[in-house]
Amino acid sequence: MEYYRTYLTEEELPTHYYNLRADMEKKPAPLLNPRTMQPMTAEELEGVFCSELVKQELDNDTRFFEIPEEIRDYYKTFRPSPLVRAYNLEKALGTPAKIYFKFEGNNTSGSHKLNSAAAQAYYARKQGLKGVTTETGAGQWGTALSMACAYFGLDCKVYMVKTSYEQKPFRREVMRTYGAEVTASPSDTTEVGKKILAEFPGTGGSLGCAISEAVEAAVTREGYRYVLGSVLNQVLLHQSVIGLEAHKALEKLGVTPDIIIGCTGGGSNLGGLIAPFMGEKLRGEKDYRIIGAEPASCPSFTRGKYLYDFCDTGKVCPLAKMYTLGNGFMPSPIHAGGLRFHGMSTILSELYDQGLMEAVAYEQTEVFEAAEVFARAEGILPAPESSHAIKATIDEAMKCKESGEEKVILFGLSGTGYFDLVAYQQFNDGTMTDYIPTDEDLAKGLAFVPPQPEE
Amino acid sequence: MEYYRTYLTEEELPTHYYNLRADMEKKPAPLLNPRTMQPMTAEELEGVFCSELVKQELDNDTRFFEIPEEIRDYYKTFRPSPLVRAYNLEKALGTPAKIYFKFEGNNTSGSHKLNSAAAQAYYARKQGLKGVTTETGAGQWGTALSMACAYFGLDCKVYMVKTSYEQKPFRREVMRTYGAEVTASPSDTTEVGKKILAEFPGTGGSLGCAISEAVEAAVTREGYRYVLGSVLNQVLLHQSVIGLEAHKALEKLGVTPDIIIGCTGGGSNLGGLIAPFMGEKLRGEKDYRIIGAEPASCPSFTRGKYLYDFCDTGKVCPLAKMYTLGNGFMPSPIHAGGLRFHGMSTILSELYDQGLMEAVAYEQTEVFEAAEVFARAEGILPAPESSHAIKATIDEAMKCKESGEEKVILFGLSGTGYFDLVAYQQFNDGTMTDYIPTDEDLAKGLAFVPPQPEE
Repeated sequence: MEYYRTYLTEEELPTHYYNLRADMEKKPAPLLNPRTMQPMTAEELEGVFCSELVKQELDNDTRFFEIPEEIRDYYKTFRPSPLVRAYNLEKALGTPAKIYFKFEGNNTSGSHKLNSAAAQAYYARKQGLKGVTTETGAGQWGTALSMACAYFGLDCKVYMVKTSYEQKPFRREVMRTYGAEVTASPSDTTEVGKKILAEFPGTGGSLGCAISEAVEAAVTREGYRYVLGSVLNQVLLHQSVIGLEAHKALEKLGVTPDIIIGCTGGGSNLGGLIAPFMGEKLRGEKDYRIIGAEPASCPSFTRGKYLYDFCDTGKVCPLAKMYTLGNGFMPSPIHAGGLRFHGMSTILSELYDQGLMEAVAYEQTEVFEAAEVFARAEGILPAPESSHAIKATIDEAMKCKESGEEKVILFGLSGTGYFDLVAYQQFNDGTMTDYIPTDEDLAKGLAFVPPQPEE
Repeated sequence: MEYYRTYLTEEELPTHYYNLRADMEKKPAPLLNPRTMQPMTAEELEGVFCSELVKQELDNDTRFFEIPEEIRDYYKTFRPSPLVRAYNLEKALGTPAKIYFKFEGNNTSGSHKLNSAAAQAYYARKQGLKGVTTETGAGQWGTALSMACAYFGLDCKVYMVKTSYEQKPFRREVMRTYGAEVTASPSDTTEVGKKILAEFPGTGGSLGCAISEAVEAAVTREGYRYVLGSVLNQVLLHQSVIGLEAHKALEKLGVTPDIIIGCTGGGSNLGGLIAPFMGEKLRGEKDYRIIGAEPASCPSFTRGKYLYDFCDTGKVCPLAKMYTLGNGFMPSPIHAGGLRFHGMSTILSELYDQGLMEAVAYEQTEVFEAAEVFARAEGILPAPESSHAIKATIDEAMKCKESGEEKVILFGLSGTGYFDLVAYQQFNDGTMTDYIPTDEDLAKGLAFVPPQPEE
């Protein structure tokens, strides 16, 4: 019998990040400067981001980037993450499918976000910066960044959406324990914050507003840069460690997956998990079905349009070509906070547009039903975000039960739900509701998409 | 360079629990029936506990108990736990000491409690029982038991202290997600609960009261038994997997610890961690300094008396000979809820009395200072309970720094602090207070200790 959990040794850990773009014939569309509608240059991006990260962001050709030893040492404090054979879930479902999951939640940030936070903090420190700024909603990314900054000795300023800051104080306290300065956004510490407070006194804030404050805090301070936890090419590059580890562990077991599944918000989790597998698919060496699972309430892939759009509602960021619901789209208050983004990674968007991956959308009650089945069978309480991938996995496994096929399914369990108990309480009490945007809601969201560049 | 994290393979996992009592020349004192002052018989205990567990409880001679395959399979869903070399903590302290920790927090229950919950749920199921009942304060033990019952298909009724039920709803929701029935105690579902409610309307409950309700719920229901998460000999037996894994991992690394440290509440964590090491010490094969770290607010070892006492304030349980502050002792509301027990494992009490182990007591603010140092260096946010062991470890490591000695320290990181963020918030805000009982407080606690049996 195979192991329940397969761990690579530290010698087997990835030494290089894998850049999926190098194997894409048609590259993801470049970021555009909204003023000139021309591709963003390195110089323009370096005012906001660290130089090394700008290089990684713009490089569509280098296949491998060496992971500096300092980052690899830090990874060893929480990696390798286990590849788990879900024997008990298979048994609970009565499916002939073989289910594996790559579990990224066993670190204090509770998710895969720490993989990129580590790299971004390291490069900021190497550039001699004093600190970094970022925004956070529910707090996963802010927590991950705080941890990495504590390790690399970097100041960390987090703008946290005010409603989360007040109603979800626990991740805020984790960040503070790691030494981060956490400010409720909008705040009077930035010009944009003051302006918003004057215009909307008593507002609970938004992610778009927190981004604007974090960017301002970075560009107006000597020795600071802004960092972002998803969507960007550099983030998918760092997250490739998930897929590289999973690929090697499966290779050791002599197993090839038929289907690979991950949840998609900004795309960093799925993009990281599939990287080496999609590389094989692009090079024609292997074929895999790859499925992104997203919330029906924020269905970027399944109901969005492939257009240039702003990544933030404040429209201070460059334009990205992506599957988008429009920067004017107001996502419903579902509990999978990490999947409430109107757009999508440009890399995944391009792969989806080329038909190289599929997408499915689920309502949150059916996602929590899947989460409960998984938790009781496998022990781990999954994050609402990750539970979208669990739902898709169970659906595919049940198809195998009907057809009798012994397919191998690999899914990404990107995080744990230890800070999502209010959501589980609603589910347990039977008071959870679903949200599906109407066509009118979608039209409203897209109304704010800027004029598209000429082809 | 050694690995950061050492994992045993599944073949290397323990196949037997190790019963430390078999190597003790002077055995721990037996439980007494408070009515007869005679040792509790198997028959008397089987009314409350599962038969197999009663056997384990009373057996002072059998050195090894085979771990049934079903339990070993379940362990594989969250074990082996890693043995971690705390390189970053060593660096942060500038100590020549080599620090290792055995990390038991990487499962959804967040602590080592799941090791014994697994065994207790399995034996209950094997006996053909329908379900088990238990009490829980902050909820670690209740969560662990809910998870194990979901896995083994057993009904689980948890009596949760009412103040925790209302003020700390998150672990309650984890339990409910695993299918447990969680009742705020005191409740009107038991006679003892009704009586207490009539006498003290609006009371927030206590652990002693919850124990009484859980025991009543078990003995008045067909096919139910009561289970307990610490203190008992059987629990220390199950927890020996912690020490057995740590011992084998250190052996593989060729390392022998000089000092072994764990926090002590009821004793299950330290008792489990030290089991094979203490066995070597008892057999004269090796020598180790073994240190229990306890809260200064509830100092059973350092300020208690070695006496027969009730384990519960309700005085429904047998008498145990242990280091006790007296069943009338009112522990202060410190955040390390798992260490707020007036007594101590009879096994550890006997070992301490024989001078085979030491104990230290710490105030909670200094414990949280140690927790913060550890979290920033090693990434993991520790439980307040486990942070007592971190504090003791840092103290010993700093002594090595002064003396230049390269001692090897092994400590037990029994759990994570993800559900203790209110405590961290108080620490971060600088509003945390310390509590040290006066001699008068201690005298009050001991006033309720029953007359001692004749020697």
